[in-house]
Amino acid sequence: MNCLRGFKSLLYGFFFSFVLSIWVRVHGQNIWPMPKSVSFGNRTLSLSSNFELRTYRSNYLDSSGILNEAFERMMHLVKAGHMLKTDFPDSGIQDSVDIALNTFDDMLTSLPVLAGINIAIRSPNETLNFGIDESYYLYVPDTGSILFARVEAATVFGALHALETFSQLCNFNFTTKALELHSAPLTIYDQPRFPYRGLLIDTSRHYLPVAVIKSVIDSMSYSKLNVLHWHIVDDQSFPIEVPSYPKLWKGAYSNSERYTIEDAAEIVKYAEQRGVNVLAEIDVPGHTSSWGFGYRSLWPSNGCRNPLDVSNEFAFEIIDGILLDFRKVFKFKFVHLGGDEVFMGKAPYILLFYSELNDNNMTLSDGYRYFVLRAQNIAISHGYDIINWEETFNNFGGKLSPKTVVHNWLGQGVAQKVVAAGLRCIVSNQDRWYLDHLDVPWQHFYANEPLTNITDPNQRKLVLGGEVCMWGEQIDTSNIQRTIWPRAAAAAERLWTPLEKLPKNPREVALRLAHFRCLLNQRGIQAAPLDGYSRNGPQDPGSCINQ
Amino acid sequence: MNCLRGFKSLLYGFFFSFVLSIWVRVHGQNIWPMPKSVSFGNRTLSLSSNFELRTYRSNYLDSSGILNEAFERMMHLVKAGHMLKTDFPDSGIQDSVDIALNTFDDMLTSLPVLAGINIAIRSPNETLNFGIDESYYLYVPDTGSILFARVEAATVFGALHALETFSQLCNFNFTTKALELHSAPLTIYDQPRFPYRGLLIDTSRHYLPVAVIKSVIDSMSYSKLNVLHWHIVDDQSFPIEVPSYPKLWKGAYSNSERYTIEDAAEIVKYAEQRGVNVLAEIDVPGHTSSWGFGYRSLWPSNGCRNPLDVSNEFAFEIIDGILLDFRKVFKFKFVHLGGDEVFMGKAPYILLFYSELNDNNMTLSDGYRYFVLRAQNIAISHGYDIINWEETFNNFGGKLSPKTVVHNWLGQGVAQKVVAAGLRCIVSNQDRWYLDHLDVPWQHFYANEPLTNITDPNQRKLVLGGEVCMWGEQIDTSNIQRTIWPRAAAAAERLWTPLEKLPKNPREVALRLAHFRCLLNQRGIQAAPLDGYSRNGPQDPGSCINQ
Repeated sequence: MNCLRGFKSLLYGFFFSFVLSIWVRVHGQNIWPMPKSVSFGNRTLSLSSNFELRTYRSNYLDSSGILNEAFERMMHLVKAGHMLKTDFPDSGIQDSVDIALNTFDDMLTSLPVLAGINIAIRSPNETLNFGIDESYYLYVPDTGSILFARVEAATVFGALHALETFSQLCNFNFTTKALELHSAPLTIYDQPRFPYRGLLIDTSRHYLPVAVIKSVIDSMSYSKLNVLHWHIVDDQSFPIEVPSYPKLWKGAYSNSERYTIEDAAEIVKYAEQRGVNVLAEIDVPGHTSSWGFGYRSLWPSNGCRNPLDVSNEFAFEIIDGILLDFRKVFKFKFVHLGGDEVFMGKAPYILLFYSELNDNNMTLSDGYRYFVLRAQNIAISHGYDIINWEETFNNFGGKLSPKTVVHNWLGQGVAQKVVAAGLRCIVSNQDRWYLDHLDVPWQHFYANEPLTNITDPNQRKLVLGGEVCMWGEQIDTSNIQRTIWPRAAAAAERLWTPLEKLPKNPREVALRLAHFRCLLNQRGIQAAPLDGYSRNGPQDPGSCINQ
Repeated sequence: MNCLRGFKSLLYGFFFSFVLSIWVRVHGQNIWPMPKSVSFGNRTLSLSSNFELRTYRSNYLDSSGILNEAFERMMHLVKAGHMLKTDFPDSGIQDSVDIALNTFDDMLTSLPVLAGINIAIRSPNETLNFGIDESYYLYVPDTGSILFARVEAATVFGALHALETFSQLCNFNFTTKALELHSAPLTIYDQPRFPYRGLLIDTSRHYLPVAVIKSVIDSMSYSKLNVLHWHIVDDQSFPIEVPSYPKLWKGAYSNSERYTIEDAAEIVKYAEQRGVNVLAEIDVPGHTSSWGFGYRSLWPSNGCRNPLDVSNEFAFEIIDGILLDFRKVFKFKFVHLGGDEVFMGKAPYILLFYSELNDNNMTLSDGYRYFVLRAQNIAISHGYDIINWEETFNNFGGKLSPKTVVHNWLGQGVAQKVVAAGLRCIVSNQDRWYLDHLDVPWQHFYANEPLTNITDPNQRKLVLGGEVCMWGEQIDTSNIQRTIWPRAAAAAERLWTPLEKLPKNPREVALRLAHFRCLLNQRGIQAAPLDGYSRNGPQDPGSCINQ
């Protein structure tokens, strides 16, 4: 920069100072998503260099290590930003400021010290599934001889949320080079508004390496999302191993772009340890072109590769085999059976295929319905409830199993029809919650209300929540995280925080969301700037907080 | 996808098969960057589930753990792609294919087993710096009773390169679910063509969290780059702590967007453990607007914030203080003192400033030269050799210290002038090696030859190597890695591999580079597709290998 631009720079300087002064003011409340209830004081505590986990009065024994590992991860996260003085052996690099620092050491020692966190969990059970109690209570005292933060939670998974919240309260002090917690005494009561808070990833259009899926799961837990909807297979590729039908993954893009069934089990385990359920999807009868590379008879005719042929018993046998294998790995209450975009009667091959159906006295739409309902019954026989894309409801809603959850995607206003019909619903209307729609800014993600026009309390309960969808046609390892974040976080607060605490105007949370975006960056997650067009990089130099 | 697109899909299918068949053919040579010499057979070895490191006949004692930790990282990388059968306790999820697998178990046991790797290092010294011996020899036998891969290296840092190469030879077998090495027996002699193989990052235009810098260092080691040029401060922000002048980092964007001096030491240590030197830059006298937020007297006049005032003794005192502190942390032979884009005589403030200079009987260019040379002397007094941007050479080359390395950036053809003048040079011509130039494809990065038009052997030795530059005006955590990779890898091979092994047409290495891009992705690095415009995401669904 040269001096011609000096004044412009000066103006920027004023602007930064202004923004930062606001930032400091909301400091005590920089938690994302906003808890149900927060009250706080103005006292600063210093975290002990031996900050420890205690589980006094807990019924949960942590035999699998979920809680201990979560505590270690939390400590790693709050320490990852900067080296602590206590962790850095004296190397002489601070000689010149030792006098200055001694003053601060005194200041440090004069702060009350938070010695650790005690987590008491009521339930000994550590099985994650739909509808478990995710609530927690977090209290940070500011007086007493030995200060311990206190967490009470019904389940270990509520405790994980408490640890995430606690991590967002910790700050690095650049003078003392120690960790601090501001705003003590602090009391938080928290629980999610919706039990289903999902993110879809798509490993058929582009393979996502296991390390990348794990990184997505990590980042989900930071905004308390709890369902990874894994759209595993589709027309383009069939990357997963199905032991019962070992030729299916011949439909993978390449030998190396595959998941073994053990990889899938590892991903499920990794997610569960972070309070995230994994919802597996096989999308039938459409979106199945890749299936026939291993079993050619699944292609309805020469040159036509989907939908699966309703007159072919083998199609149902193979679905049965897939779900038999899936049930051993994917323990979530639900399996997703797709059912969308089944194109009937347009192409000559489809007409040929359905003319065969007609021999069985079925119409085209009869065939579609028959397929979906039979696939539902197979899933139920394996102990699953079913999620189906909304076309199934739109076409033959009255026939769907009562165990069905209808997954909205086409547009708004669907949930109210679904719950009026007595079925459950999750919301992903594409005009607001499809992350691949790059023209949808975070404000629209934030403002999308799943309960719009649903007033009956019983019907409201049927809306289980919602899900943002990261379809993979133009997404791979290089850009998935910056396309997901920060927009998914905007939806995450909509799904977590009580409606009455959500401002009508998303602008009111912009600075707190920017702060969360910077926190994601600090944790190594490639969250994009809030400004600009969905996932664009920054247009100019500047602070993370105002981009 | 519907059936109207069936034929298109079929064509894609053929294309994939074609590409994959090529991929399989070059399998034994998928190493990036290509070693100096490789010869290999066609035998497959199975890696022992207890694959171990041995250091028989090594003079290096590894008291700091560099080698052991590098071995552990290497094992983690080769195992991160997929779960190994031996690491996954039998959970019944494979019941249905046990019969099939038994056959493969027999196959597995019939393969020769590679029990570990023995690394013999000649030098006990573990000090990383410019010009150390990075060569290594790697041999993988295919016969014998207990098979061990063998590495011989002059230094532990050569051994680190050997481990990286070895990691690229390991493959996951999706049938046996074990790790394999193909192409035994295998012999590699390897050493870099240039001793300086750099990547610039810029933490002034956008702050990069410590975790992100570490991730960049990780990825550098995968393509054997060995200098992280850290352009720490600039006009826009001064994020680093200088203990001797503790107000300097008041020029940071915000309180949290700062590095303590301990953070810097941690980054240097992290890099050294991976064989990467850290070159610190303070760019003087231009690019210094941010300095004056802490010390207002550094601004030449009201409204003019740079360059540093040659008539102000405090400017030199503060440079001395910075380099005094830097020397304790940045142990690399060189420090970078910038010296570029010193704009003289354009703006009224500059004229005012220089009119003051004229009182001291200096012309404008005298002042520029005086500043650069005095700063060089300060650096030399702290034991550094100096790197300066090429404007210093272009303006007063004959006056520069013989300890100067001239850093080319403006265009091609500079290195030949620099070395003809007897100075050393590194090459970063912006039309080919600036990563922020998004219109420069990887092929141009690959084809940029540092020794163009330099024939005298003594002059050729003065070209130390080159560096790709990731300037940060439009780069932050969200997009840095996908902007760096895969293009930086193309330059890395140019800098590592003997000239005679580099094809004239980059197309010949496209598939191997695509394979390396997929490997980076598998390791969680957001390398962009090779196709398209520099760092664009994929335009269509498809395999990693052909995008």
